[in-house]
Amino acid sequence: MIAQVGIIMGSKSDLNIMNQAAEVLKELGVSYELTIVSAHRTPHRMVEYAEQAKSKGLKVIIAGAGGAAHLPGMVASLTTLPVIGVPIKSSNSIDGWDSVLSILQMPGGVPVATVALDGAKNAGILAAQIIGCHDSQIGDNLAQYKEGLKKKVEDSIKEL
Amino acid sequence: MIAQVGIIMGSKSDLNIMNQAAEVLKELGVSYELTIVSAHRTPHRMVEYAEQAKSKGLKVIIAGAGGAAHLPGMVASLTTLPVIGVPIKSSNSIDGWDSVLSILQMPGGVPVATVALDGAKNAGILAAQIIGCHDSQIGDNLAQYKEGLKKKVEDSIKEL
Amino acid sequence: MIAQVGIIMGSKSDLNIMNQAAEVLKELGVSYELTIVSAHRTPHRMVEYAEQAKSKGLKVIIAGAGGAAHLPGMVASLTTLPVIGVPIKSSNSIDGWDSVLSILQMPGGVPVATVALDGAKNAGILAAQIIGCHDSQIGDNLAQYKEGLKKKVEDSIKEL
Amino acid sequence: MIAQVGIIMGSKSDLNIMNQAAEVLKELGVSYELTIVSAHRTPHRMVEYAEQAKSKGLKVIIAGAGGAAHLPGMVASLTTLPVIGVPIKSSNSIDGWDSVLSILQMPGGVPVATVALDGAKNAGILAAQIIGCHDSQIGDNLAQYKEGLKKKVEDSIKEL
Amino acid sequence: MIAQVGIIMGSKSDLNIMNQAAEVLKELGVSYELTIVSAHRTPHRMVEYAEQAKSKGLKVIIAGAGGAAHLPGMVASLTTLPVIGVPIKSSNSIDGWDSVLSILQMPGGVPVATVALDGAKNAGILAAQIIGCHDSQIGDNLAQYKEGLKKKVEDSIKEL
Amino acid sequence: MIAQVGIIMGSKSDLNIMNQAAEVLKELGVSYELTIVSAHRTPHRMVEYAEQAKSKGLKVIIAGAGGAAHLPGMVASLTTLPVIGVPIKSSNSIDGWDSVLSILQMPGGVPVATVALDGAKNAGILAAQIIGCHDSQIGDNLAQYKEGLKKKVEDSIKEL
Amino acid sequence: MIAQVGIIMGSKSDLNIMNQAAEVLKELGVSYELTIVSAHRTPHRMVEYAEQAKSKGLKVIIAGAGGAAHLPGMVASLTTLPVIGVPIKSSNSIDGWDSVLSILQMPGGVPVATVALDGAKNAGILAAQIIGCHDSQIGDNLAQYKEGLKKKVEDSIKEL
Amino acid sequence: MIAQVGIIMGSKSDLNIMNQAAEVLKELGVSYELTIVSAHRTPHRMVEYAEQAKSKGLKVIIAGAGGAAHLPGMVASLTTLPVIGVPIKSSNSIDGWDSVLSILQMPGGVPVATVALDGAKNAGILAAQIIGCHDSQIGDNLAQYKEGLKKKVEDSIKEL
Repeated sequence: MIAQVGIIMGSKSDLNIMNQAAEVLKELGVSYELTIVSAHRTPHRMVEYAEQAKSKGLKVIIAGAGGAAHLPGMVASLTTLPVIGVPIKSSNSIDGWDSVLSILQMPGGVPVATVALDGAKNAGILAAQIIGCHDSQIGDNLAQYKEGLKKKVEDSIKEL
Repeated sequence: MIAQVGIIMGSKSDLNIMNQAAEVLKELGVSYELTIVSAHRTPHRMVEYAEQAKSKGLKVIIAGAGGAAHLPGMVASLTTLPVIGVPIKSSNSIDGWDSVLSILQMPGGVPVATVALDGAKNAGILAAQIIGCHDSQIGDNLAQYKEGLKKKVEDSIKEL
Repeated sequence: MIAQVGIIMGSKSDLNIMNQAAEVLKELGVSYELTIVSAHRTPHRMVEYAEQAKSKGLKVIIAGAGGAAHLPGMVASLTTLPVIGVPIKSSNSIDGWDSVLSILQMPGGVPVATVALDGAKNAGILAAQIIGCHDSQIGDNLAQYKEGLKKKVEDSIKEL
Repeated sequence: MIAQVGIIMGSKSDLNIMNQAAEVLKELGVSYELTIVSAHRTPHRMVEYAEQAKSKGLKVIIAGAGGAAHLPGMVASLTTLPVIGVPIKSSNSIDGWDSVLSILQMPGGVPVATVALDGAKNAGILAAQIIGCHDSQIGDNLAQYKEGLKKKVEDSIKEL
Repeated sequence: MIAQVGIIMGSKSDLNIMNQAAEVLKELGVSYELTIVSAHRTPHRMVEYAEQAKSKGLKVIIAGAGGAAHLPGMVASLTTLPVIGVPIKSSNSIDGWDSVLSILQMPGGVPVATVALDGAKNAGILAAQIIGCHDSQIGDNLAQYKEGLKKKVEDSIKEL
Repeated sequence: MIAQVGIIMGSKSDLNIMNQAAEVLKELGVSYELTIVSAHRTPHRMVEYAEQAKSKGLKVIIAGAGGAAHLPGMVASLTTLPVIGVPIKSSNSIDGWDSVLSILQMPGGVPVATVALDGAKNAGILAAQIIGCHDSQIGDNLAQYKEGLKKKVEDSIKEL
Repeated sequence: MIAQVGIIMGSKSDLNIMNQAAEVLKELGVSYELTIVSAHRTPHRMVEYAEQAKSKGLKVIIAGAGGAAHLPGMVASLTTLPVIGVPIKSSNSIDGWDSVLSILQMPGGVPVATVALDGAKNAGILAAQIIGCHDSQIGDNLAQYKEGLKKKVEDSIKEL
Repeated sequence: MIAQVGIIMGSKSDLNIMNQAAEVLKELGVSYELTIVSAHRTPHRMVEYAEQAKSKGLKVIIAGAGGAAHLPGMVASLTTLPVIGVPIKSSNSIDGWDSVLSILQMPGGVPVATVALDGAKNAGILAAQIIGCHDSQIGDNLAQYKEGLKKKVEDSIKEL
């Protein structure tokens, strides 16, 4: 099965967070691939990855990075696929503000769909929602997932 | 033609910004509807809008709001469609920080695809990218739009 | 005895903080109920809770939430009871700023009485003050509580 | 008729904002008095005002101030009435952050019900909600006011 | 010997920080007294302390507080003595920003000499400098202290 | 008459703000001198000014600067006189935050008495309070000034 | 004469600021070229520009950008020349914080020499200082320039 | 061999961070010296160090400091050599914001090349890049270092 979602991150140290996107995609029945692409250390690999993404069959790219986080925005400049950005509160970040602002504040013409700080799980769900627009099976899985969120709240109410 | 994208905003005063989403969607050949839905003043209308969105054929919702901006996140809690949030620097906002944070920082399970402050144009492009995942005509329009961005830079280089 | 104050929170993980509201209400002789209501995971439960609050006899609602904290503001949009918001510095919060701003910065027409970050104790006292406007027993309890605060300072002065 | 709500502010320059509390209280049928009480320039007047508030019949105090805004918190330290604080973005304020934080972040034991920056209108509504807990006429006025908010949105939808 | 400097703080939990002011005053040969005065829990004690400070012989007051820190500014409103404010990063503070802004941003007419966050040591030195304006012995002690700072740097250079 | 207070500023563009210190000192009967001393453009002049300040009879130095504001702290490193720092919201400042933090956050050993952003008036009053510690005439003038602040509030109360 | 410094910027709207770098380089006798290179709209042009910079004889690159400002960091990832970044407070920026943080907070291995917000003039001077390390004529020009800064202060002192 | 780069820091406690500059310079074959120079505790030593730097053969100065960090800017005011500033998140810093802003926001005429918070390693690389402008051996070392960064990413891709 060809991957629908490409998950990339700037550094191996982001893996802990970015794996949460992979896990939720698996749970929702969406295929994905996951690798490391550094905007600042492997810029040519980044250009190549972004430019080949569509033709190799990816529908959505999830890119996570911290500090002066240029990966999501640069990938978005090189593809017409929707790019989801995950700001990561890495060790070299000023409380996450740099990660958030350097992903969110893209100029007119080149959007990045930004999620919460360290919000890789939500990036996975958002990618599934995008796939789900045209794939009713994924749509059903998302409805079930939503039902599950509600169930967990109801369970904790009973526990109280 | 049935609208593919629903553009909603918390107040008429947001129209100036949110119209930029409408304009770019038109340019990219994506159908849309546009209306006012206030989370705090018309909560039932919001619930209804969000819950009927999918069944009436919408593929993506763009929601703009300012200050304690709850519209995008609440709509996302009520639908499995992808929801794009536009933080608006309204007159009652603290330099836009409240708008950005109350849209971006959604809890695990309920993502909002957040764009830049007052970034309604990018919200429109992102919605088109989502539609374009499965609609090659829109995909082509996006590629052309991207080409146009490049052209404008090249023109301004010549002017210099 | 019918509860006068409804304490709700977005997640079980907020219980540690929100229990401080319950404890001070107990100390001040104000009856309360406490449960979990998630704006984003159980939106219908939230609508129901807010709309039935007044008719079932509640006088004040205390709502605690973190991150993009929509619970207090959404409840305020659905009732005419005074709503006290407790911003919680949850694990997914950017140092508490998102929690504070998304509760405090409500638009004109729909107030939330916001207390300090993690200030559930003060939310309880404020609820008692609201009840105490018309209940002289609670008013007396509050005067005594205030006296107690002073005593504690006087004791620590002696210790010095 | 004895005033139910006392509106005070640190300086005449705050009048423009604080009058919005007075106007909405009038609209909601709640009696009020309005005057200037400066924490830093008339501290004894402040002590007196706060300590006599309850015995002269006030039920709620609304206090507005900007910069290092000590008026709401100090009044709260001197009365058991609920105190609503309005942070004002005065000319000597750093974008309103000082006003917000010096009103909101009260220590445990002494709450101030803080509303949005320059949110005097919401302070008035909140005061009416507190009065409305025990006065069904005010409660009805608030319900009608809420209905009016909804109507205005519906009107602007038609205009669109 | 009559105390020249009065060190006060809002809570016993501030003692750890505020003792650093006492220690450096001792080192510099300036007499002091130290006690707890809470603006919010013992407002009358605060008024009394501030109003009697000058007549009982104090020359300078050092006041430390955290969160919505009103003690330094309120004391300054009640005396013509110079008041030094120490913002404390207490447990209920938002990273110290509230403490800093609610002490620093005093309105025109009522200054507080603010030092760095948790900067009680510098508050002590500043108090000594104020006393030293007219007391050449203290002035000499300060010169010696300054020499000591330089020595310590020179020693660590040698260690390197 | 020998100047008691030296007012210095980093640039002629700061004069508009810093003159407010001069005016209030005049009103309070404290002698002063005023000149431009740039830490970054005339560092030797700064060293000289700071080192001669005490011997030429100054009792207090008021230093105003904006952006990366090093003047107050560097002067404080070169004298044992009390140094009052005025953060200025100059055109090259990020909303004043850089000015405030680079003056306030001095390391242990070298205090700067920081006043509010653009708070030159309060710097003047604070300097007078320091002089007033040992000069009863200035002390009386300050008491009268304080009385004047109160009067102005009382007048605006009557106007209301 | 071959250009020693390359000045690039993300958009024609940055020209007003970035021209200040050009002007000061001219004044200091350093040759330069100036053009527009957009990271997000012309990513391939950016790669090419950065990779050819050294071989075509440039010694330093000055790159200005605003919002999610990726140009300086991406250029730095593609060359071993020193890259100076100028954060620009463009119309789509949140008070300049996004511009500053997305340029400054580069990860270990890929530095950008960041100057103040809108500090293009200082970028020019810094570039000249880098050239001046090995070019004594430029070094002399810089010394003269520094002398000029001092003269201007001395002139404004006389004017006072 | 004469040192090409001077590494200085305000305090021995900064050594842990600043050693990273030394290590990378060693790796890149650039000679350096390292010592402590405190702007606030040894201002004369600072003046001397900065003024003799050029004549003793240094080409670049790296200066690290935290809190109200005046060392880099003051050194820049006293030499025409390029000065690289390293903001340090020292224990007395407010999350590093003071360190960053008081180094970055230098006035027009006196640049400091600022790197990321605690970014001493990048300061070392930047210094090498400046030396490398005219020293092809260092230029080659930098190219190799860049290649090494890429290798490390490729290795972690394989590990995945």
